[in-house]
This record gives sequence, C-alpha cells and structure tokens, in this order.
Amino acid sequence: MKNTFGNALTVTLFGESHGEMIGAVLDGIAPGIPVDAAYIAHQMDQRRPYGAISTGRKESDTVKLVSGVYQGKTTGTPICILIENAEQHSSDYAEQQFLPRPGHADYTAMQKFHGFSDPRGGGHFSGRLTAPLTAAGAVALSMLKKKGILVGTHIARCAKISDRSFEDYEKDIGLLEESLFAVLDPKKSEEMQSAIEEAAGSGDSVGGVLETAVLGIPAGIGEPWFDTAEGLLAHALYSIPSVKGVEFGTGFALADLRGSEANDAFVIENGAVKTRSNHNGGINGGITNGMPILFRTAVKPTPSIFLKQDTVDLRTMEQAELKLKGRHDPAIVHRARVVVDSLTALTLADLLTEHYGTDWWAEA
Amino acid sequence: MKNTFGNALTVTLFGESHGEMIGAVLDGIAPGIPVDAAYIAHQMDQRRPYGAISTGRKESDTVKLVSGVYQGKTTGTPICILIENAEQHSSDYAEQQFLPRPGHADYTAMQKFHGFSDPRGGGHFSGRLTAPLTAAGAVALSMLKKKGILVGTHIARCAKISDRSFEDYEKDIGLLEESLFAVLDPKKSEEMQSAIEEAAGSGDSVGGVLETAVLGIPAGIGEPWFDTAEGLLAHALYSIPSVKGVEFGTGFALADLRGSEANDAFVIENGAVKTRSNHNGGINGGITNGMPILFRTAVKPTPSIFLKQDTVDLRTMEQAELKLKGRHDPAIVHRARVVVDSLTALTLADLLTEHYGTDWWAEA
Amino acid sequence: MKNTFGNALTVTLFGESHGEMIGAVLDGIAPGIPVDAAYIAHQMDQRRPYGAISTGRKESDTVKLVSGVYQGKTTGTPICILIENAEQHSSDYAEQQFLPRPGHADYTAMQKFHGFSDPRGGGHFSGRLTAPLTAAGAVALSMLKKKGILVGTHIARCAKISDRSFEDYEKDIGLLEESLFAVLDPKKSEEMQSAIEEAAGSGDSVGGVLETAVLGIPAGIGEPWFDTAEGLLAHALYSIPSVKGVEFGTGFALADLRGSEANDAFVIENGAVKTRSNHNGGINGGITNGMPILFRTAVKPTPSIFLKQDTVDLRTMEQAELKLKGRHDPAIVHRARVVVDSLTALTLADLLTEHYGTDWWAEA
Amino acid sequence: MKNTFGNALTVTLFGESHGEMIGAVLDGIAPGIPVDAAYIAHQMDQRRPYGAISTGRKESDTVKLVSGVYQGKTTGTPICILIENAEQHSSDYAEQQFLPRPGHADYTAMQKFHGFSDPRGGGHFSGRLTAPLTAAGAVALSMLKKKGILVGTHIARCAKISDRSFEDYEKDIGLLEESLFAVLDPKKSEEMQSAIEEAAGSGDSVGGVLETAVLGIPAGIGEPWFDTAEGLLAHALYSIPSVKGVEFGTGFALADLRGSEANDAFVIENGAVKTRSNHNGGINGGITNGMPILFRTAVKPTPSIFLKQDTVDLRTMEQAELKLKGRHDPAIVHRARVVVDSLTALTLADLLTEHYGTDWWAEA
Repeated sequence: MKNTFGNALTVTLFGESHGEMIGAVLDGIAPGIPVDAAYIAHQMDQRRPYGAISTGRKESDTVKLVSGVYQGKTTGTPICILIENAEQHSSDYAEQQFLPRPGHADYTAMQKFHGFSDPRGGGHFSGRLTAPLTAAGAVALSMLKKKGILVGTHIARCAKISDRSFEDYEKDIGLLEESLFAVLDPKKSEEMQSAIEEAAGSGDSVGGVLETAVLGIPAGIGEPWFDTAEGLLAHALYSIPSVKGVEFGTGFALADLRGSEANDAFVIENGAVKTRSNHNGGINGGITNGMPILFRTAVKPTPSIFLKQDTVDLRTMEQAELKLKGRHDPAIVHRARVVVDSLTALTLADLLTEHYGTDWWAEA
Repeated sequence: MKNTFGNALTVTLFGESHGEMIGAVLDGIAPGIPVDAAYIAHQMDQRRPYGAISTGRKESDTVKLVSGVYQGKTTGTPICILIENAEQHSSDYAEQQFLPRPGHADYTAMQKFHGFSDPRGGGHFSGRLTAPLTAAGAVALSMLKKKGILVGTHIARCAKISDRSFEDYEKDIGLLEESLFAVLDPKKSEEMQSAIEEAAGSGDSVGGVLETAVLGIPAGIGEPWFDTAEGLLAHALYSIPSVKGVEFGTGFALADLRGSEANDAFVIENGAVKTRSNHNGGINGGITNGMPILFRTAVKPTPSIFLKQDTVDLRTMEQAELKLKGRHDPAIVHRARVVVDSLTALTLADLLTEHYGTDWWAEA
Repeated sequence: MKNTFGNALTVTLFGESHGEMIGAVLDGIAPGIPVDAAYIAHQMDQRRPYGAISTGRKESDTVKLVSGVYQGKTTGTPICILIENAEQHSSDYAEQQFLPRPGHADYTAMQKFHGFSDPRGGGHFSGRLTAPLTAAGAVALSMLKKKGILVGTHIARCAKISDRSFEDYEKDIGLLEESLFAVLDPKKSEEMQSAIEEAAGSGDSVGGVLETAVLGIPAGIGEPWFDTAEGLLAHALYSIPSVKGVEFGTGFALADLRGSEANDAFVIENGAVKTRSNHNGGINGGITNGMPILFRTAVKPTPSIFLKQDTVDLRTMEQAELKLKGRHDPAIVHRARVVVDSLTALTLADLLTEHYGTDWWAEA
Repeated sequence: MKNTFGNALTVTLFGESHGEMIGAVLDGIAPGIPVDAAYIAHQMDQRRPYGAISTGRKESDTVKLVSGVYQGKTTGTPICILIENAEQHSSDYAEQQFLPRPGHADYTAMQKFHGFSDPRGGGHFSGRLTAPLTAAGAVALSMLKKKGILVGTHIARCAKISDRSFEDYEKDIGLLEESLFAVLDPKKSEEMQSAIEEAAGSGDSVGGVLETAVLGIPAGIGEPWFDTAEGLLAHALYSIPSVKGVEFGTGFALADLRGSEANDAFVIENGAVKTRSNHNGGINGGITNGMPILFRTAVKPTPSIFLKQDTVDLRTMEQAELKLKGRHDPAIVHRARVVVDSLTALTLADLLTEHYGTDWWAEA
C-alpha cells in the first residue's frame, strides 16, 4: 500500500519539500500513551542540519499533532503530524526538472508520474519527508521505552573511517541519545566530521554505514515467512533516501564463515536462554530470539554534489552538463541515524501490536 | 499480513515439512496466461537437492495446480499449488525439540508458538516451503518473460570462492537457466563444489552470496516511500531461510565512495536514456530507472552441521550438547538461487500489476 | 485484497466447482486451539443439500486440514483446508457459457475474466465454495465459543412465511445448532419447506431472510470509521452468493422511527451497563456495546430455475431462450445460514485478534 | 486497517470534532488529474447544515489540499486534505462523558478507548469527519466523471414520506447535483422538510432512506468473493454515522419474490447486452454487469434529541436522566447523501484502479 506502512500500527506519509506542509498519520496507537512534546523536539533536533557538515537550509520543523492526542495522551485514534515548510527557494525548478541529477530520483519521478510530480526541492522524494517520520518514530520510541525496549544507532563508518562497535548496549544507547553526531568513539567523531568538511570543500560528498541495536525486545516476535523481523525492518529502512543495503548480525561476512563458526550456541545465563555469540543479530527464522537485534544500513554518498556532471536534457534528448547550485548536504549519514531509529521503532511497535494486541501497550 | 505477500498479486504460503502437504495460493493473476507445466517442473528441478553437495533426502516435488487453471491457461481466479510430502522420517522429533539447534528457528518457534508448532523437520520453518514458492515463482517468471523481462541469479561467492560478474546480461541469464549449479565461470563452479564437499566431509557447512539481475524492467515502477522497489524485494528475500543481507547495486561498498564516484551519469544510447555506470542497481528513489536491477543476497552457512554443538535443554534449563544425525545440506546457496529468482519475479509482477492493472498482462 | 479477507486473522479462498479441489487457507490463528473434526463435520452437514428441498447433487465434502494442525491442535501457522470435488457432470458447459443465465454471474464472469474462467458448474463463483468457508468458520466458531461467544442464525422469512424472532438467545442458539432447517417455530418450518417444494414443483425458486444473533461479545470491538463492526460483517456477508441486503438491529425500519423511539436507553442490570431496547443491534458508532449483535441478511431466490427464460447468445449477440437442465437448489436460504454463522465468526475473530492480540485466544 | 480504506486507491481519515483540524489523506491517485477547487467547494456546500432543518453550528469548512497537487493537477503522490475546526463550544464535556447519550457512540468509545478518547463534540466519532471524506470524494467523483461515470443519491424516504424513484438516470442525477435537499419530486421535498421541522419543534428527530444510482460503470468490476462490489460499497457506507442498512437492487424485497420474478432477463439493446429489469442493482456474482448500480442506505433518526432520556452515570453506575442542550441536527439524511456519493466514488475508483491500473485514469 503505497505511502502507508504497517499492519496493526500504520504510518501514512504525505507532502512535498516545497509544498505547504509535510506530515504523517500514525494509526493503531493504543489509547492513554503519554505524548512528550519535549522528546519529539529532541528527536527532531537530532535530524536537523548540523554545523558545517550539513546543508545551509534552515528547517524550523515545528511539529504539530493536530489529532489523536487529548490532554497530553493518545486517544487511540489517528495522530496527524504536520510540519509547515517555512523556507523555500523554489524559483528555478521549472528549468531544472528536464536535467535530471545523477543518482537522484528526478528521472524516475518523471517516468512514474509522467511529468506531473512537484519538482521543487525533490518534491515528495525529498529527504525532508523523514522529518514527519522522525516525529512519528518518537511516539513509537516512547512506547517501546515504556516496555523496556531501547533503540540506538551509531555511525559505524563514514568517509572510510570506522567507529568502534557496541560494547555495553545500554550505556552506549544512552550516549547516542544525547549525541548530535552519533559516534561511540569521540576521536572518530572528529575525524569523520573533518573528512566530511574536506569532501564538502571540494564540492563532493561522502556516505557511510549505520549500525543499530535494539535491546530488550522479547523473544517470539516476527513471522517465519514474508513478515520476518528482518524483512519488515529492511522494507522500512529502504524508504530512507540513499539506503542501498541492509544486513543483520554478521550479515554479508557470514557468507565466508562455516556453520561451526556462524552458529550462535545457546547458553543459560541467570536462568534465561541466551546465545553466546550473536551472528544472527537476534533473529532466527524471522523471529526475535531475545538477544539484541543488530543490523547495519549502507548509506550511499549524497548524490547532490557541486562538481560538473553528465546528464541528459529530456526535452531534446541530448547530452548535457549539470552544475548544481544551492544548499545540499555533503553527508546525510549523521542525520539519517535518527530516521533509522524511528523506522525501527515503528516496525517493531507494529509487530508487537500484532502479537500482543492494541491494549497491551496500555498495561503497566 | 502474516503468510501472505503482495498487494495486487499475492502469494499465501502454508504447510509443514512433515505434514501432509505444503503449498501456496497465488492470487491476482490475469486470466488467459498460459501455464507451462514443463517450465514449472524445470524450475523445481533447479531447486532439488543435487549431487554430493546436497541433502540425501529425496524430494519428488510433484506440483499440482488444483485451481485457477483451465484448459492450460489461468482463469484469473486463485491458483492453489499443492505438493505432497512423500518421504518423511519423523520418529525422533519429540525429544529433539527441547534441544534447539544453534542458528535454527527451533527456539524462536517455541517462543512464538508456545510449544504447539510442528517440530518435525523444521515444520513451517523448513526450507522445504520454498518448493511451492518456486512453483508460484515459475508462473510469475513466465508472465515477466512474455513482457520481455528476464531474471537470473548466479552464485557470486561460495566458500570464499568468487564467480565472475554479469557481462552480457541476456546471454548470461540464458546460461543460468540451463545450469544446475548456477555459476558463470565453469572453473569456479568446480572449485566451489569441491569446497562444499570438503566442508561436508568435515561435518561442517558453507554459505555464499547470490547476485541477481533483472533485465527489461520498464522505468517508473516502485514507490518513493515504503513500497520502494528495494524495500519490497528485500522484504520478500528475507523469507528465504538463511538470508542475512541484501544490497542493491554497489551496495555496502557505496559507503566508501564519494558522490562523484557513486553517481550514475545519464547518457543517451540509441535514443533512450541510460546510465553510464549502474552503482544504484537500476533503482533511484525507490523506482526503477530502466537499467538492469542488480542486487546481492547474503546466505549464511547452513546451520545444520554434524559437529558437536552447545545448546540448552529447555525442559531442565541446563546446558546440553547436541550432535545432529540425519540428512542435511552442507550448502543451500545453489538451491536458493531459484527461490531468489522466484521471489524477485513475484515481487516485480505485483508492482507491475499495481501500475498497469491486472488486464495489462493479457495484452499482446 | 481479492480472495483474502481479514486483517489479523485472514481467510483465503480458492477453487472451482468442477476443478480438482476447493479450499481455503486460514491464517493468524493462535497456537494451541483444539481442532474438533467432529464439529467441523457437523457444520458441513448443516450446509449439505437436504431432503426434497435441495439439489440432487451429492456432495461428500470430506474436509482435510493438511497444514497448521499438529496432534489435534492449531500450530499457529496457516491451516490449509481442502475438499475434493467428487461428483462432477461437466459435459455440456462449452455450449452453455455463451448463453448466460439471468440472475447468475455467467455474464459478469465473462466480462471480468475475458472468457478464460472455468464455466463448469459456475466455476469459482459457485456456491460450492462456501463449503471451505464453512470449515474455516467452524474453527472460528470453536474459538469464539471457548471465549463464551455464541453465534446463531435462523430463517426469519422464506417464501413469504415468517419465523418467530429470538426470545431466549442462549436457548434459541442451542436449538439452531441441532437443526438442519433452522427455524425457531417448528410449525413454520413445515410450512416453509412445503412452500419450497411447491415452488420447486413448478420449476421455480424462493428466497428469504436470515436473522443472526451473536451473544457474549465484549463491548469495545470495532472501529469508528471504515472497519466498523457493521461494515466488516456486511463486507463478508455479501460474499455469499444471492445476498442482496444486510441490515443491523431494526435496520431499514429505523428510517421510519423518531429518535425518541429508536434510541436504546442505557440501564444498569446486575451491575452492568445494558440497553433497554436493541434497535442498534449491539453496535454504536461501529463498535460493539456488549448487547447481542443482531442483523438480517436478504437472500434472493435462487437464480437457477427450470422455467424458460430470455437471454442472449454472446456469440451472435442475438436474443435466445434458455431452459436449464440438471440439478439446482429451489432455495438456498436454509443452507446459507451456516455460511452466515461462519463468516460472522471469522469476521469477529479477526476484530478480537486485532484488539487483544493473537495470544489472547490461548489464554484460559 | 483501522482508519484507512481501499486497496489501490486509499483514504485515511483523522481528526476530532473539537480538535485543531480534521482531514484525510488520499493516496493512489493517478498523476495529472485536474483538481477543481470550485467543485470541491460545491460538494462541501451540499454537506453543510442547511436552513431550519439543520444544526445551528456554523461550519466554514474551508478545505486545504496541502500536498499532492501542483499547478492545479494531481502529482500522483498523497493528497492531504485539511479542514480547521473553527467554532467550538467545548466547555461542558468533562461532565457529560460519564452520561452516555442513548443511540450514540459515547459508551462504546469509553469501552474501546478506556476513557482516553476526546469527548468534545463526539471526538473522532463525530459526523463532522464526513467533511474531509466529502472533499476526498469530490476528487474521486471528478475522476469518475471524466470516464463517463455518474453518481447520484436522492432522499428516497424521510419522516415516512417517499420520493419518486429514478426515471431518467442521467437527467435525475443532473437535478440532484444542483439540489441542496436532494429529492426528485419537488412537492415531496417540501413535505419532508416540513416534517423535519415539525419533529425538531417537539425536540425529536427523524431518519430516512437514501437511494443511489451509478451510471456508466463498465461491466467486469469487482471480485467474486470478499471484495464483491456490494461488499466493498457496504463496508464503506457503514462508516457514515447512523447508517444501519444497505441493500442492492430490489434488496430485502427480493426475499419475497420467486426466481422467475427476480431474475433479470438479458436483452440486446443497440448491439449491447443489457438486462430488462434491474432487480440485481447492476451487480451479479459481486461484479458489475454494465447496468446502473442501484442501492439503498437506511439512516436511523439522529440520536441527539432534546427530550428527556434514560441513561446511566458511569461514575456511580446508577440510573440517570439526560437532557441534551446545544445544537443538533433533527435529521441528517439530506446532509448524508453527498457522503454516500463520496464513499461510492472512492470505492469504485479503487476497484477501477485495481482492474485497469493507476495510469488508466490519465488516459484520454
């Protein structure tokens, strides 16, 4: 179902980058869940352009919840999230839409929507639509936290520089929550930011890999076929513009291991079943096993660069050259991580709702 | 929706490894599509255990289409595909289900289904359920072929040995169709099979990476959010037991490129828009751009190995040792590739049906 | 989604009247629910052609559950229900399909499926497909009964003869369960059956109205918009061939009442909130209020009659006359009532699963 | 899926009567469809409170389309429709929510949402949410009209007074479009309005029956099971507050006919297949047959009356008396008819999109 995701708990996304408003409708939320405007604002801050390494576009991103919340709590009816598009420089898109940007959706938008899509600022394809997803995700993250489930994502790699891995999940996730550039090793944070600035200086861009951990998810969530925990998470994550890969646990590196190396032996710890290693990223047969869910998301370098590029003129069907102006992010990996957290929370909240029912969330 | 996948064209999967029958219901197929029993049988052959490198289990896999086909053509109503489970050795599962196999779904099945799932041969989690998916996929592959769309998957890597990449897509896909061990470089085929036999000899198993190409898909298919072409394909592919990663185009390696390297420049070729490189794997903004779709799927080593492993006894909640007997595949990557083709075809046929309508398939 | 119904608990229907098998897949059922073959057989008996007032066609209707059940209990995975089509007289359909039967789906099937649908015995449109629905419904009815929810349907009207209304719901539903011709007033049962025989004698057919009560459903089930309890039940019920009307509570007669007459006053009974009257049929604002759900379903007279009828020849596009032969029901209202019970149970089980989760059914 | 309806073309509804905004998201619309603000305003006018026979509440109902429309045409991406809630008298709901109004959703809302729903003005249950449905329906009605499909609804009965039936469909639908009180016989219009005023004068309310015709729908639309044209339309229509019955063609009266009376004989007219009568309301086997679709919708008398009523106090669980104040409609049948048209158009546009694909709408 096109712009709607989820089964029991759904999110519907709408809006264009330079339209009047962007937003999302969150449905299937249990009644009585406290909605914390400060937490939503905190999450929006983590997505906001940041420092020298982001677009100069100022996004005020004031989030309004115009339905589904009454006296600070969810009513159980759909929550409509609205964000006004304040600052728009829309002058020169009429021309530009016939010169599709390499690596962007300009050309495919033209093919799918037959030239009727709003070309300004990427229209409906704009990364700006991750703003309402972040607000919706904040509601889901709050719900999960209330049930003891924590989600955190760090920049595992950016501009060929690697961060350390998760060590103490709970502590590390705590660190990430308060970090605007979500790296576990502070030294690597500086290196990465310098590398981004350096790429930006030469009119170029960089990509990266995000690593996510989910702590406290109960065992038994997900389906054996189709709606596997992996399949649903990946389905959601590919919505994030520039994501081109998702792997769980040890992922692609598992292909080079032997079964004897890759299998996660079961052990008893404090009377509970655990696995000694976690090559499977907390999921077996599509279903959570109670260990932390672990996955990595590949983010390609931002396609909007300021170097001269080859493209075609769709009016004349001849070769053309493109030199972008304006404001563009030289990297989005640090802004994307809160979107990964958000989509992860929405997907898991949906699976938990299916399993335990809507009312489960309201229980103490 | 649990065991159903798709929007306009759907597949519903049922059955247990040692139950009476396994099968699938394929719905949303246009009327008048020829159903070629020989082609279905050919696809089933490609999934069948093969030579010394597969399980000794004999799977006759006779496919019956008990509805939705009349006088050799689809009627437009649901096609029910049935496969009887002929050979079953089900004696010793009562005991075994309390000693979950590492890397397997035994433990998560127990958690999700509270001990009521059929434990024999993996039950509903068994790779055996990919047999009806393969039959359903054969119908979808035929539909695509009629529209000039070809799908092919090769074993890009197995037991640390790499195959060559696609060169001439059309010719290579033709080769793969007739190959039981789907490798493009015949020399690598032998090496890989020897390595699998070697691992099997030591009671161990190996994994690999499958690479898939889709040729001839029109531009404009997929959605910008949620139902992106990548998201839907990944969602489907994670159903295949042992899949732990999916990446499109240059995938995770894109994370280390700069935008100037990763962007696919647009060019005019024979009057049509193409891209010079294909780092994006034929998809921009979630929508096909007319270039070949390219993706890679990571398959972990088969978890069923004959070496002694640590597990727990769920009755006593104490540590235990497990030594598997019976017949198990030392690798499944060569059998999984036809399942990848099948799920790819089902997913794309669904997206095309949404875009062009059900009747489009019946047009010349 | 074409031949699939439900959100959390789904049923997928397949098969043609004279194909090899008909069946259904029931998904989303909790694990550990006892499956009572005798009860399923009992329900099938209630749908079976009965006495002089039904078709002469013998339907053995042996129900096989080939998946999703293990050791007499649901596993939590999809249950595939299969019924073989034993007795088929399929000789003369090639000719007949160009002379569409008035009141039947012959012509619309031709339009939708472009002449490729299986014309034998009505194909996929046949009332015969209510057999697997009845078997699936039996599973749902058992689940509801375990939770104290009872469903019963009687023939409120047939051939212009009216039955008495429900008086003591629990006792009346008990009566109906053991009745093959489900009428509450035994005298009216005889009258109705005589009237059906009389119509059959003259080559004609009769219709009727079914009235259904659901007892014990908790308050709070259903949605305010779209997935209202009424909307979902009606959606399901219109699947039954020949149903042309559904009304809840006092239904169409409410249109002639004033608000002061139609409103159901709230009262306290034994410490619980009830309504004094039940004009709203147990549903307010799309949501159950804890009173019995009450609705009536209009069943048109069977379109297959033996009198000469006007039709057209679709080959020549000229007027033609049609005189049916073979075996046809002069009334189906008495056979349809178990199908109404079944679809009611499936719909409510779905709504309850959404609200309380899958695991709720397994609780004591 | 709770507040979302449709498969290929979907509408998602949100908002509360006295919240900040109400609205809807319309997704799956083809690109390039002209959006006519004047026509949307015209449809909103037809839903607006009217004359002495409606609530005194002034609803400005200015419709904003904040996404999915660019340069006056649909973009193919979701259209978000917003309506601000201007005039709100919300003072006294805190008290009132514990005294549920008979015939209303107050009590069931309390049960479903555990006391967290917004009680002001009926909250999410308010008939006010039919305003964004009407706006969304206007877009769908325009799409249908472009394809030669006309939808019209008249008040067939109100306060025990009957209007004449449709005679010349095209002309009658034209009349209804320009009528604020949609009756075909002008004399009956006056009688009905007098009767409503009379009921209002005594603090009471009246109900009615709406009759709808759809002209020009092609044959072959709908599914044999579950997603029958009747089932989907009824599913949608039961969303309208106060609807308690839906019947197609001759509906409940068919139950008293014989097959020989009820069957619609096929005839050739101007080289096309038609039926002589239309007892089946244009639908056979769940699929349109090319004749006008005809159905009737029962609307109960408005539950908000000013006479003293019995209710219970949910705080003390004791009997109580209720005497409503404020502004309430003594009838809604005349305002509901445009909502019936809207839901009909949305449902049929969805079915047509499934059959012909999204791009069909853009074709000339």
